[in-house]
Amino acid sequence: MNLILLEAAEVDASGDVSLSGARAAHLLNVLSVSPGQTVRVGMLDGPFGVGTVQSIGGGAVALRCVFDASVPPRPSVDLLLALPRPKVLRRLWAQLAALGVGRIMLTNAERVERNYFDTHVVTPECYRLLLIEGLQQARDTRLPEVSIHRQFKVFVEDELDGLAGNSLRIVADPSATSSVAAALGDVNDRRVLIAIGPEGGWNNFEMRLIEARGFQAIGMGARTLRTDTACVALLALVRDAITARSA
Amino acid sequence: MNLILLEAAEVDASGDVSLSGARAAHLLNVLSVSPGQTVRVGMLDGPFGVGTVQSIGGGAVALRCVFDASVPPRPSVDLLLALPRPKVLRRLWAQLAALGVGRIMLTNAERVERNYFDTHVVTPECYRLLLIEGLQQARDTRLPEVSIHRQFKVFVEDELDGLAGNSLRIVADPSATSSVAAALGDVNDRRVLIAIGPEGGWNNFEMRLIEARGFQAIGMGARTLRTDTACVALLALVRDAITARSA
Repeated sequence: MNLILLEAAEVDASGDVSLSGARAAHLLNVLSVSPGQTVRVGMLDGPFGVGTVQSIGGGAVALRCVFDASVPPRPSVDLLLALPRPKVLRRLWAQLAALGVGRIMLTNAERVERNYFDTHVVTPECYRLLLIEGLQQARDTRLPEVSIHRQFKVFVEDELDGLAGNSLRIVADPSATSSVAAALGDVNDRRVLIAIGPEGGWNNFEMRLIEARGFQAIGMGARTLRTDTACVALLALVRDAITARSA
Repeated sequence: MNLILLEAAEVDASGDVSLSGARAAHLLNVLSVSPGQTVRVGMLDGPFGVGTVQSIGGGAVALRCVFDASVPPRPSVDLLLALPRPKVLRRLWAQLAALGVGRIMLTNAERVERNYFDTHVVTPECYRLLLIEGLQQARDTRLPEVSIHRQFKVFVEDELDGLAGNSLRIVADPSATSSVAAALGDVNDRRVLIAIGPEGGWNNFEMRLIEARGFQAIGMGARTLRTDTACVALLALVRDAITARSA
């Protein structure tokens, strides 16, 4: 936990907040804070700030916080992901938030099992905490927006442009030879949208629909990666390419 | 499972092997093989090949295999990793093998808890199966070599050069601004050795020892990543940079 994230409703008008639970335990047991000490804080989807420890007692920590005037920008990369197995998705939420994703769109596909949509891991009660864990690890305040789309064709044809607008779009494809860096050659200030298919890949119909919406196919070499490994690897390559462009 | 990996001792002189357990279950339940059908096989640390289904019965599958003449090269990237938490390392083994690593050196550091060395996840009984799982996912036969080093200073000063020879060496450092691509500018045909520290980082003494052995510090942006995410991200960047150089 490299940042203590606070919800707006927890903090009163003068910046006071009383923490218990995991955040207080981290302050007490890992950082061993004492009154007067300052710690990095952030308001969820809001500014960073500094919290000064006011008092400690009964496993709780009282902080008085002062926040920056500006809010950090939303990460400029979005993800369209065929819904992975629940066990894989559970591992992925915090890692996606840590790597920095503005929006996560989970969709159906022929090779996605229907019952995955009915599991706990796609409920906000589950993924919100895991996303916040990732933000606290990576020191960001911007919670990824999550949407779930059970009808692939309706989503890609009718809804995607509304959600992803003028993004530069790439789709991972084992048969493609174009690199991420080449595909992002003219990204400039546009958002980037990455599509990653299910284990076993998109079927031909799905890939045609995706390419019809302007996605360029990119390859990541001969090795077939599990969805969670592929997501982390591809996000790392895209973020690196964007950084190199803007350097 | 995109490749059925076989141990040399399982295959007789005429290429016959009888599979049961997870590999047979995959052939029967996922690929739904029948006699006469061929499947991709590989000999662990040996060549790829083709197996023809001879017979099926009682949950077992008999294959007759023909192997290539040549053995695929060992991945040209090695990893020096401060021993992560057991839960994190367990998740990491298969992903490292899938991404392609020639050698994995796990070492102590001030911020590594001593009892991590006594856990099941650093025993060959545990990690060998997980590494093979990753190879079968990524279609490779070359099992990463694993070594465990409880004395950081002795390892880095006296043993590392013997294991890693004339490698180009980089160390992940949150304060560094040099990119992976820049650091690998003159990699040519050399192996690459990546060092990744513990959660919280190497201490100053450790970083000085590492840099004294020729490691260049590279940064991966402002976001602090968990060890497993950082390993996958950095391996993806290194593999991409090597591919771009040799293209």
